[in-house]
Amino acid sequence: MISVEEASRRVLATVRPLPSETIRLTAATGRVLQTPLYADRDFPPFHRVAMDGIALSFAAVTSGRTDFVIEATQLAGAPPRPLQNPRAAIEIMTGAALPPGTDTVVRYEDIVFHEEAGRRIAGVQVPPAAAGHNVHHQAADRQQGDLLLPAGVRLGPAEIAVAATVGAVTVQVARALRVAVVSTGDELVELDQLPLPHQIRRSNAYMVRASLLEAGAEAEIFHFNDDQQVLRRGLPPLLAGFDALVLSGGVSKGQADFLPGMLRELGVEQIFHEVQQRPGKPFWFGQQAGGAVVFALPGNPVSTFVNFYQYVRPWLRQCQQPAAGPSQPMAILAAPVVFKPSLTHFLPVRLEASPYGHLLAHPQRAGGSGDLASLLHCDGFLRLPAERETFGAGDAFPLVRFRE
Amino acid sequence: MISVEEASRRVLATVRPLPSETIRLTAATGRVLQTPLYADRDFPPFHRVAMDGIALSFAAVTSGRTDFVIEATQLAGAPPRPLQNPRAAIEIMTGAALPPGTDTVVRYEDIVFHEEAGRRIAGVQVPPAAAGHNVHHQAADRQQGDLLLPAGVRLGPAEIAVAATVGAVTVQVARALRVAVVSTGDELVELDQLPLPHQIRRSNAYMVRASLLEAGAEAEIFHFNDDQQVLRRGLPPLLAGFDALVLSGGVSKGQADFLPGMLRELGVEQIFHEVQQRPGKPFWFGQQAGGAVVFALPGNPVSTFVNFYQYVRPWLRQCQQPAAGPSQPMAILAAPVVFKPSLTHFLPVRLEASPYGHLLAHPQRAGGSGDLASLLHCDGFLRLPAERETFGAGDAFPLVRFRE
Repeated sequence: MISVEEASRRVLATVRPLPSETIRLTAATGRVLQTPLYADRDFPPFHRVAMDGIALSFAAVTSGRTDFVIEATQLAGAPPRPLQNPRAAIEIMTGAALPPGTDTVVRYEDIVFHEEAGRRIAGVQVPPAAAGHNVHHQAADRQQGDLLLPAGVRLGPAEIAVAATVGAVTVQVARALRVAVVSTGDELVELDQLPLPHQIRRSNAYMVRASLLEAGAEAEIFHFNDDQQVLRRGLPPLLAGFDALVLSGGVSKGQADFLPGMLRELGVEQIFHEVQQRPGKPFWFGQQAGGAVVFALPGNPVSTFVNFYQYVRPWLRQCQQPAAGPSQPMAILAAPVVFKPSLTHFLPVRLEASPYGHLLAHPQRAGGSGDLASLLHCDGFLRLPAERETFGAGDAFPLVRFRE
Repeated sequence: MISVEEASRRVLATVRPLPSETIRLTAATGRVLQTPLYADRDFPPFHRVAMDGIALSFAAVTSGRTDFVIEATQLAGAPPRPLQNPRAAIEIMTGAALPPGTDTVVRYEDIVFHEEAGRRIAGVQVPPAAAGHNVHHQAADRQQGDLLLPAGVRLGPAEIAVAATVGAVTVQVARALRVAVVSTGDELVELDQLPLPHQIRRSNAYMVRASLLEAGAEAEIFHFNDDQQVLRRGLPPLLAGFDALVLSGGVSKGQADFLPGMLRELGVEQIFHEVQQRPGKPFWFGQQAGGAVVFALPGNPVSTFVNFYQYVRPWLRQCQQPAAGPSQPMAILAAPVVFKPSLTHFLPVRLEASPYGHLLAHPQRAGGSGDLASLLHCDGFLRLPAERETFGAGDAFPLVRFRE
C-alpha cells in the first residue's frame, strides 16, 4: 500500500502529450494550442486614434493657436487623408488611423465648435499637454513577429480574440482525450429499468462521464456484467481505442473482484493497487505498455468521486496541457477535525469565500462512502495528511475541488 | 452617469426566469434543473453489505461462537437467500442485500477460513463489536419521498449521479440563453481577410462569443457596417429572436456612434448610458418592453472584456439560476495602487493561491484599453471603489474573474 503522494506521482508519470489536430477557431474555445501564434503586424498596426475629437499638429498648439478649421472628417475604417494645412485639423473618430501631418488628438470634451464663413471651426478649450495625446501609437503594445500565444496555452476568450486579430481562422490544438467509462457490477440496472429490491440503478458511470465532459474530455459509457468471459472479450477493444479507461467497482477483495488479475492478463501492467487513504483505498492503477492507462476505481460512489478528482482529473489536465505547472489550491479548515487512522483523509467540505479573500472549508457530515447525496452540499474534499490525527481550525490544507 | 453598483443593480433587475425544456440526462451536465427530484426508494434501498466477508447473526457471536459454517455465497446483484441455520453464515460481497436471518458482516480481514469434513468454515478472529457492523442500513441516508434535488440546482457530476439513481432518464431544465453578438465598426475586416493598413481584424465578437459559450449560453455572431439603414433593417429580427444582444462599439460620442438613438427608435428603452468606471465608461444598456435586453459595450477590447465580466456574465448566471444567491469573490491586493480619478477602477490582476488559503491579486501593467494582449497574463480585474485614491497592499477588494 502506497501513500496518496506516491500514488499521484505514479499516475502523473504516465502523462503523455496528445497528438494535435487542426480545427476552426470558432470551435477552439477551451482547447490547448499546439503551435505558437505570432503578431502578423504591429499592435496597433497604425497610429490609432483613441478618442473621438480632432487630429492636429501639436506644433500648431505650441504656436499659441486655439481655433482650428476642420478640413475633413475621417471615420474609423476610412483610409487616412493627409492634413493639407498644418494649422488646420481633421475631425476624427476612435479607431481611425491618424492622418499624416497630425500627431495629437483633442477629444470632443475639450472643444467647442462654431461656424464661421461657412467653415466649421474647432475652438480648443483645454490644450493638450504633449504631442501624441490620445493616440495609441503603432507597435506600442506588440511588434510584428512578437510571440503572442505560446504553444501550451488554453484558448480562453482573451486568447481567442488575440488569435482572431492575427487572422488564425484555424488553429492547431491538442485533440480531446478519449476516455472509456466502464461500469461493472451485477447489482446495477439501467436508468430506465425498475430495479428489483436487491438491485440499484447505475449512477457512477454517469457521474464519471459528467466529470470527464466538464474536464473537456470525450467520454463513452460501457457496461459489462461481472463475468470474466465478457470482460476478456470486451476490454481489449477499449484498451486499443481509448487514451484511458475509467472503471468503477470490482477492485476490492471480493470473489467478483477479478479485475486486477484480468487486466494483467490483458497486458495492463499494474502500477499500484491500494492507497493509504479513506475513502477510496482499493484504487488500482495500471498501463498497457505504451498504451492506454487504466484507472480502476472502487465502486462506492463517494470513493469513485474522491479518486476521480484526486487522480483522474489532474492526469487529464496534464495530458491536455503539459506546460501548465502544477497548482495546488489550499483552503482553511473552519472547524477542528479528529481522524485517527494513519490514512490520508478526504474530508467533504463546503467552501466559503470570506470577505477578506480567504477560502474557508466547512466540514460536512459524511454519510459513509456509499452516500452520494451527502456530496450535494459539498464543493470538494480537504486532503488531511495521514501522519496527523488532529487538525486545527485555521490551518490550511490541500483542496480537491469538484464544484466551482 | 451612474455608479458601477447602480449599473449592476439595474442590469440584474431585468433578469427573468427562462422557459424550461425536457432533455436527456446524458445531455444535461451543467444545466439547471427546473422540477425537483425526489427519492423513488429508500437510500440505500435495502440493508446493503458494505464490506466483502461473511454475514451472520450477531446473537451467535454473543453466544461465544467463533466458527461459522458457510451455507452459501451471495454476490452483489443476486436475490438475498435467507440464512437457514442461525449459527451458520453466508459468504457475501460488497453491494449485496443482507440475507434475512443475518444482521452483521465480518470482513475478510478479520476471518481465517478452513475446510472441515468437506464444509467451508470461517473462523472469526476479531469479533464484531456490535450488531449491524459493516451494514449500510436501508434508508440510512434518505427515505423514499425525500427531496433530493430542488429546482434551481446546477446539474454537476454529483447531481447527475443522484438523478441517475432515481431513474431520471430525462430531466426538465432551463433552456439555454440565446445571445446575438453584434459587431459594428467599418474599420473591421473578417478573420480570413488581409486588412488594409488602416483596418484591423474583427476580434471582440469572437471574444464575446467564447465568453458566452464558457458561460453555457448559445451565441451567434452578426456583423453590420456603421450604416443606419443596415442596422435599422438588421436589428429587429435579432431583438425578436434572442434573449439578449451584446453589441460592441458605436456607443461613444463619435459621429458613427448613432446606436443609442437607433435602439431607442427600435423600441429598446434606455436604462442607462455611461458608468463611472475606467475602462468601459460608455456602456449603454436597455431593454425592449418585455423583451430582449441590449448590452451595448464600448468597442475597445479591454473595455468590452471588463463590461462583459462585470455586467453580462452575472446577468446570464442569474437568468440561468435565479435561486443562486449572489456571491462576490474577494481577492487581496498584493501591491499598493494609486488611482486618482473618481471612477471605479478595474485593475488587471494575476491571481495567486497562497499556501495559507489566501487569494492574492498581483497588479499587472495595463497597456490601455486597446491592448488585448495585456490580458493574456491576467486572470481577472480587481474592482477598486471610486471613492478612494490609494489602495493598500493586504486589503481585499471584489474580484471580477475571467480565468479559472
